[in-house]
Amino acid sequence: MGYNTYFTDALNRLHDERRYRVFAHLERLAGRFPRAIHHTPDGPRDVIVWCSNDYLGMGQHPKVIGAMVETATRMGAGAGGTRNIAGNNHPLVLLEQELADLHGKEAGLVFTSGYVSNDAGISTIAKLLPNCLILSDALNHNSMITGVRNAGTDKMVWRHNDVEHLEDLLKKAGKERAKLIVFEGLYSMDGDVSPIGKICDLAEKYNAMTYIDEVHAVGMYGARGGGQAEHQGEMARIDVIEATLAKAFGCLGGYITGSRALVDAVRSYAPGFIFTTALPPAVCAAATAAIKHLKTSTWERERHQDRAAQVKAVLSTAGLPVMPTDTHIVPVFVGDAEKCKAATDMLLEEHGIYIQPINYPTVPVGTERLRITPSPYHEDALIHELAEALVDVWERLQLPLKPTNAIAAE
Amino acid sequence: MGYNTYFTDALNRLHDERRYRVFAHLERLAGRFPRAIHHTPDGPRDVIVWCSNDYLGMGQHPKVIGAMVETATRMGAGAGGTRNIAGNNHPLVLLEQELADLHGKEAGLVFTSGYVSNDAGISTIAKLLPNCLILSDALNHNSMITGVRNAGTDKMVWRHNDVEHLEDLLKKAGKERAKLIVFEGLYSMDGDVSPIGKICDLAEKYNAMTYIDEVHAVGMYGARGGGQAEHQGEMARIDVIEATLAKAFGCLGGYITGSRALVDAVRSYAPGFIFTTALPPAVCAAATAAIKHLKTSTWERERHQDRAAQVKAVLSTAGLPVMPTDTHIVPVFVGDAEKCKAATDMLLEEHGIYIQPINYPTVPVGTERLRITPSPYHEDALIHELAEALVDVWERLQLPLKPTNAIAAE
Ligand SMILES: Cc1ncc(COP(=O)(O)O)c(C=O)c1O
Ligand SMILES: Cc1ncc(COP(=O)(O)O)c(C=O)c1O
Repeated sequence: MGYNTYFTDALNRLHDERRYRVFAHLERLAGRFPRAIHHTPDGPRDVIVWCSNDYLGMGQHPKVIGAMVETATRMGAGAGGTRNIAGNNHPLVLLEQELADLHGKEAGLVFTSGYVSNDAGISTIAKLLPNCLILSDALNHNSMITGVRNAGTDKMVWRHNDVEHLEDLLKKAGKERAKLIVFEGLYSMDGDVSPIGKICDLAEKYNAMTYIDEVHAVGMYGARGGGQAEHQGEMARIDVIEATLAKAFGCLGGYITGSRALVDAVRSYAPGFIFTTALPPAVCAAATAAIKHLKTSTWERERHQDRAAQVKAVLSTAGLPVMPTDTHIVPVFVGDAEKCKAATDMLLEEHGIYIQPINYPTVPVGTERLRITPSPYHEDALIHELAEALVDVWERLQLPLKPTNAIAAE
Repeated sequence: MGYNTYFTDALNRLHDERRYRVFAHLERLAGRFPRAIHHTPDGPRDVIVWCSNDYLGMGQHPKVIGAMVETATRMGAGAGGTRNIAGNNHPLVLLEQELADLHGKEAGLVFTSGYVSNDAGISTIAKLLPNCLILSDALNHNSMITGVRNAGTDKMVWRHNDVEHLEDLLKKAGKERAKLIVFEGLYSMDGDVSPIGKICDLAEKYNAMTYIDEVHAVGMYGARGGGQAEHQGEMARIDVIEATLAKAFGCLGGYITGSRALVDAVRSYAPGFIFTTALPPAVCAAATAAIKHLKTSTWERERHQDRAAQVKAVLSTAGLPVMPTDTHIVPVFVGDAEKCKAATDMLLEEHGIYIQPINYPTVPVGTERLRITPSPYHEDALIHELAEALVDVWERLQLPLKPTNAIAAE
């Protein structure tokens, strides 16, 4: 039919630019995280996963699996319909109450993913505000950019985390115009956090709404896992808190929380919420179990931070170029797409260590990196093995190592 | 802060237009479908669900629940990452192979929902074709319309199922221009099917690509549950077959199947696929179990058609205005939004029967209806209770009944 060549051409472009992606074929092992099976053409092999976004390992928590199993057994697999037509299941209603409580908001609304919650949430909110101007941080996630685009309203991009630039734009827009400030609590590729209080100050000063994506912070920061906004003591000042159930909560789905009227309006107007099947009862129950657990248990958060600190210390000591972060994300600088891919291939094939290379377009060209995400279940021995493997790979690829100090040289 | 009034106003508009929706709060009971619990302010009540899109009751099938439970226990709750970063789990890879096989295509690709598969699938395919013209059936689902809009290419809408109109538009566009014909196999609100063979004839004649949404047909039509395209013997002629895992397969998720290059291109270029967490292993395994089962078991399909025929016969005999369809969808005409809502409220509160009213904008004003979806598990006794309840409600709301015949009057 001739059409296939367009798709082949599109793929060839990616191959040419060394951007064609091959997905690692993995099998997770509950109770044995971060150990997994890597399915290869030569058969299954053991592997240690060092790049999962199941940050706290809640996906294998007995309470979470227990809730999933018990609910599937009792209520079946799927929801059976959209929210409006037969799909509004009991565990989903309870999950939304749990999320509202987590963030201290009047109401919560669950979507099939964090991606959909940003797309539907941002676009619907902005459309309901007359002549809305969206002010979007330059490093916002693709799902937020999609939401901003689908709003069809005016938008301006402020330089990443630059509140002075944000203030310039707010001032120019004026107090009268409807404005929505869209940003993240924690940026997942660089591991930096946003100055939430300062952004809220500006929002109040210029009468703007605030919408925060806490996808990489919920469960992990704040006394009850409410995210960076809770951690920084600013949760009550944010209008809309969006996040995912698929990272620290170990399940699937996304959500927004906010005032009753706002949440009800998104519920009533967002096509991406209305015309799709609701999340399965078992997934909702599992997510609720994870959220509830992390509201009171601090072990996971503390151990997570401890592991991240330990990885940073051990890798730095070994002379590896750890990029400084204040969070649980441990990026190790490579700065070259080919070598980044080669390093991860060697780690996987020769060391049984799985870390996905992070290349353009996820990060700018020249800042390619390994992005390491330690969990509470990465023990000291695994960290030391990681360091040794990385040093081996670094040396063989002739990537620069800083002089190692005495301890590491032992 | 003043913003809340915009959301309150938006909600008031819906109240004024009688379009504000209240979701029924349900609890499904595996093994007892279509029986469920309805949570009301006065406590839980038993209810018979007559509007689920878990058409075949696969959500409660022991194989499906078994696969979900076994996989969650063995692999945990969530996938732990995007497809590219640690989330490409074994059951998901197997599911995609199963789907490719179901539709006789080279490859399959799974998304978090059917909604996302249409949005991402249509928009990405059209964007990869130079100067593509999308030809879209007038009654296409919101998710397809969203995909068409997000493609940003030219589009033309052909009158519903009108192949002459489609041919006019194809002829005008010319053979040289890239064209994508987008339509459904079975339209879920009217229950009519599309003339797939004729559409494929035109696609071949004018060198257009074909994209079919089989969301309301997979599992239920065709010798192996391949949908209307299989049922009509046209599956091999369609370029892209899209569907959901959340209706007849009883789970969650959506997919496309097609040529290896096309599927690989969507995999590589669609942001809505790339930047979101993969479907959980347990959900994938459950869906695979449902698909596998329905490839060989015909009991569900036959019983489903039998039940639909029985509902149509019994309701018609009772004088109720059943709208004629050739499929498993049984719409009962009301033609008035208020009465449609009142009828379903009475059914729920007084008869323990849950049917969601279908009003504008889901269907045109003046064609409001009850949309009844019998499953293999709706026995004769339930059907007769349904007919009696409907007649009672029809009489009390003074909705027109046709003269009943002798048998129904007994
Ligand atoms: C900042 C951010 N927001 C939203 C998402 C999407 O969340 P989900 O995976 O639940 O779709 C992601 C990544 O997945 C993300 O990194
Ligand atoms: C025709 C059609 N396509 C796609 C969808 C979306 O599928 P999903 O529920 O899996 O998002 C629906 C309804 O839900 C539909 O009716």
